[in-house]
Amino acid sequence: MKVSDANVPVSPVGVAVLGLGNVGSEVVRILEASADDLAARIGAPLVLRGVGVRRVADDRGVPVELLTDDVDSLVSRSDVDIVVELMGPVEPARNAILSAIKHGKSVITANKALLSRSTGELAEAAETARVDMYFEASVAGAIPVIRPLTQSLAGDTVLRVAGIVNGTTNYILSEMDSTGADYASALADASALGYAEADPTADVEGYDAAAKAAILASIAFHTRVTADDVYREGITNITPEDAAAARALGCTIKLLAICERISSRGGQQRVSARVYPALVPLEHPLATVNGAFNAVVVEAEAAGRLMFYGQGAGGSPTASAVMGDLVMAARNRVQGGRGPRESKYAQLAIAPIGDVQTRYYVSMDVADKPGVLATVAAEFAAHEVSIAEVRQEGVTDEEGQPIGARIVVVTHRAAESALSETVAALAELDAVQQVASVLRLEGTDQ
Amino acid sequence: MKVSDANVPVSPVGVAVLGLGNVGSEVVRILEASADDLAARIGAPLVLRGVGVRRVADDRGVPVELLTDDVDSLVSRSDVDIVVELMGPVEPARNAILSAIKHGKSVITANKALLSRSTGELAEAAETARVDMYFEASVAGAIPVIRPLTQSLAGDTVLRVAGIVNGTTNYILSEMDSTGADYASALADASALGYAEADPTADVEGYDAAAKAAILASIAFHTRVTADDVYREGITNITPEDAAAARALGCTIKLLAICERISSRGGQQRVSARVYPALVPLEHPLATVNGAFNAVVVEAEAAGRLMFYGQGAGGSPTASAVMGDLVMAARNRVQGGRGPRESKYAQLAIAPIGDVQTRYYVSMDVADKPGVLATVAAEFAAHEVSIAEVRQEGVTDEEGQPIGARIVVVTHRAAESALSETVAALAELDAVQQVASVLRLEGTDQ
Repeated sequence: MKVSDANVPVSPVGVAVLGLGNVGSEVVRILEASADDLAARIGAPLVLRGVGVRRVADDRGVPVELLTDDVDSLVSRSDVDIVVELMGPVEPARNAILSAIKHGKSVITANKALLSRSTGELAEAAETARVDMYFEASVAGAIPVIRPLTQSLAGDTVLRVAGIVNGTTNYILSEMDSTGADYASALADASALGYAEADPTADVEGYDAAAKAAILASIAFHTRVTADDVYREGITNITPEDAAAARALGCTIKLLAICERISSRGGQQRVSARVYPALVPLEHPLATVNGAFNAVVVEAEAAGRLMFYGQGAGGSPTASAVMGDLVMAARNRVQGGRGPRESKYAQLAIAPIGDVQTRYYVSMDVADKPGVLATVAAEFAAHEVSIAEVRQEGVTDEEGQPIGARIVVVTHRAAESALSETVAALAELDAVQQVASVLRLEGTDQ
Repeated sequence: MKVSDANVPVSPVGVAVLGLGNVGSEVVRILEASADDLAARIGAPLVLRGVGVRRVADDRGVPVELLTDDVDSLVSRSDVDIVVELMGPVEPARNAILSAIKHGKSVITANKALLSRSTGELAEAAETARVDMYFEASVAGAIPVIRPLTQSLAGDTVLRVAGIVNGTTNYILSEMDSTGADYASALADASALGYAEADPTADVEGYDAAAKAAILASIAFHTRVTADDVYREGITNITPEDAAAARALGCTIKLLAICERISSRGGQQRVSARVYPALVPLEHPLATVNGAFNAVVVEAEAAGRLMFYGQGAGGSPTASAVMGDLVMAARNRVQGGRGPRESKYAQLAIAPIGDVQTRYYVSMDVADKPGVLATVAAEFAAHEVSIAEVRQEGVTDEEGQPIGARIVVVTHRAAESALSETVAALAELDAVQQVASVLRLEGTDQ
C-alpha cells in the first residue's frame, strides 16, 4: 500500500547548502546519489538550488552554475525552502542563518560554536518565523543524540549526560594510555594522521567539547546553557605518570563532557556542565571508547542508563546526521507543518564548579620522611574530604638514589570547593614539594 | 525567554491508558509525578482520563473512578486525545487501537506482536484518520531505536541492523557462557529470577525477537515486513559443547535479530530478516552485552556503525519510551499537526533464507579413522563452501577409551542454500555419525 499517490505531482523542496568542505561536499553527493530514495521518503523531490562558497570555481566538484559567493541572495531565494549551514565559524554563519530564518526558510546547522553561544537567539528567531531549526550534526557526528534527548526522552527526567565528544583528544589520550607516550608526541601523531588540526587549541583545551556540553545540557535539562556556563579544563597537562597511575588504579583517562542535574538540600534543581579529563574505571562503558570514536551515556530516571556509540566526526558520518535533519524538515514542509518544539524552558540555574561533587585523584611529590603521609591525610580530614585509597612510593634519581616520595590519594565524593581548599593547603605544607596533578574520578558510585 | 506564554490558558491533552501491568502502572505514575514538567514541555497539561482494565477494583493503585472495563467507550470519549495501548496480546489490542484511530485519537503502543502482524493495517488507518501512531517501546525497551531509524537516519541508507533484543534469551546464553550450565538449568535460573515467563516459548523459540526484527526491518528499509517474513530459530538446542566450542574460537553465542539489505548481481535490492543464535567474536560490541540488557548495532552507508545500548525490558525503562512518544504526540496536538511520516514505502522483496550469505560453524561426530577429515573437507568443497578453520579432537567414553572424534568446521561466507546442501550430504556420509550443531558466525568480515 502506498501512503501517498506517486502520480500526483508535488512541488519540489528547494535546498541551499552553505559551505563546501568535507561535510558540505558529502551532503551534495548524497542529495544527488540518493535522489529517488529521498523523494520517496519525503513525498517530494529534494532539489539543490545552490551552494554558497567563498571561492566560485569549476574545480569544486559541483556544477559551477550552482555555486555562488552571494550567500545573502541564496538564502532569500523564493525557490529555497531549507538552508543547510555548514560554513564553520560563528560569523558569517550566524548572519546567514538569521537571514534564512527571516525569509521563512527552515535551517539545518552543524555549527556547535554558534549554537553554544546563540541558541537562545536562533531558537527565538525560528519560533517567531515558525520554521524548523535542527542541529543533530552539532554533537557527536553521526550518533543520534539530540533527537533521542529532545524526543525519545521527552517524557523522562534526565539526570546525567556524560560523553566522549571530541575525537582528537580521545585519540591522544588513547595513544598515551596504550603506548606510554607523552602528550607532545601523542599530539604529533594525531596531527600526522589528520586527527588534529594545525592549531589544536579548540580540541586540546576542551573548547570544542565545552560547546557540545552546552548544547547537550540545554536540551537534556530544558535550560539555556551557553559555552560560558561550562567549566572547562583541557588535556595539555596530562603526563605519562598520570596515565600510568590511572592504569594502576584500574582506570583510564578520558576527556569527558558532563551535564548533571544537581538537587540541593532545599529541593532546588540546578544544572552543572563541565569538561575535564577524568579517570574512568576500565569496566565503565566509556573506558572502551578508543581512538576517534565518540560515545554518550545518558542516565534518566525511568530509562536507566543508555549508551550511544559511533563515529563522532568526519565528512560522511556528519553528513548522515545532516541528511536526517534535512529529510525531517522537508517532510514537515511537504506535509504542511513543522516539527514539534519544547513549549517552555525550565531555565534551571547553573551550579558553579565549586558546588559539584565528585571523586578526585591527587598526586603530590613529598619529602621521604616519617610522618608525611599522616600530615597529608590530616589536611584532607581538616577539609572534610574523605580518603578512599592512598599509595606512597619512593622516587629515585637517575642513579637510583632516593630523592623523595610520591603520594597518590583517591578520595570519596567531595565538593570541588573543599577539594580546592585542600589542594591549596597541601601546597603550603613544608613536606609537600609540589601537587603534581589533580584529576577527577568519574563513573563510580561513591 | 519563554517560547509560549504560560498565562494563556490552554486546553489539556486527554490521555487514556489501556492496561495496568508493569508498564501501564509506571506510565500512570509518571503522568502524576511529573505533571508540571510535562505540561511545561508540551505547552498544555497532560490529563489522565481513564484506564482500561479487565478487573475494576479499588486495589489497583489508581483511583477506582478512573478505571473502566469498557475499553470501547473509553477510547471514543471526546475528552481523550491520545490512547496508550499497553494491554498485551494481539486482540483485543488491535480492535481497541483501530477504534481509537477511527475516533481521531493518536495512538502509542508497545505491542510488538500486533505491530509485526498488522503494521500495514494500523499505519493505513492512522494515515486515513490523520493521527499519529508511535511505537518506540515495542523494540528494545528504553533504548531509542525506532526514532533514530525513522528520523535521524532518514537521509542515509541503512545496510544492516543487528541486535540483541530479547533479554530472557540473552540472560540464558550469558549464563551458559559464564558458568558452563546447560540450557535447562540456565532457563530454570532465569525463571527463578523472573527473567523468564512461566511459558517461555515466545522468548526461547525466538518469536519475540522475530516480531522485533520485523518492526526494525520495516522501518530501516522502508518496507513492510511481517513476523512471517522473518526466518527464525530459537536457542533450545544450544548445548554446553557449543558454548565451549564458541569460546575456543574466541566467540560467544548470542541470539541475534538481523535485518539486512541484500544487493543482488542485477542491482536488485532485497531485505533479509532473521533471528537465530550465532557465534559473535568477543571483540564485537554485541559480545559484551550481557544479562537482561539489549543493544542494537546499525550500519548505514554514511553514518558507519552506530550502537545503541540500554535496558530492553522492565516497567520503568519501557515506560520511558512510552512517555517520550506520548509527549511527542501531545506536542503535535497542541501545536496543531502531527508528526511527519514516511511518504512512500520502498517495498523491497523479502529474500528467502537460502539466499542469505554468512559464515557457519558446523560441528559433527565422526569415526576416528584416517581420511575422515579429507572426506568431510571434500564435501564442503563439492558444494563450494570454503573452509576457514577446522579442528578435530578425539572423543573418549567415560573410561577414557576412544570412541570417535569431533570435527568443528568454520567456513568463510557462503549461501545458506549451499550450506544446507553440504550439511545434508555430510549426514549421509558413512564416516559421519551425526551433525551435532550448525550455527552462524556473525560480526566478522569474511
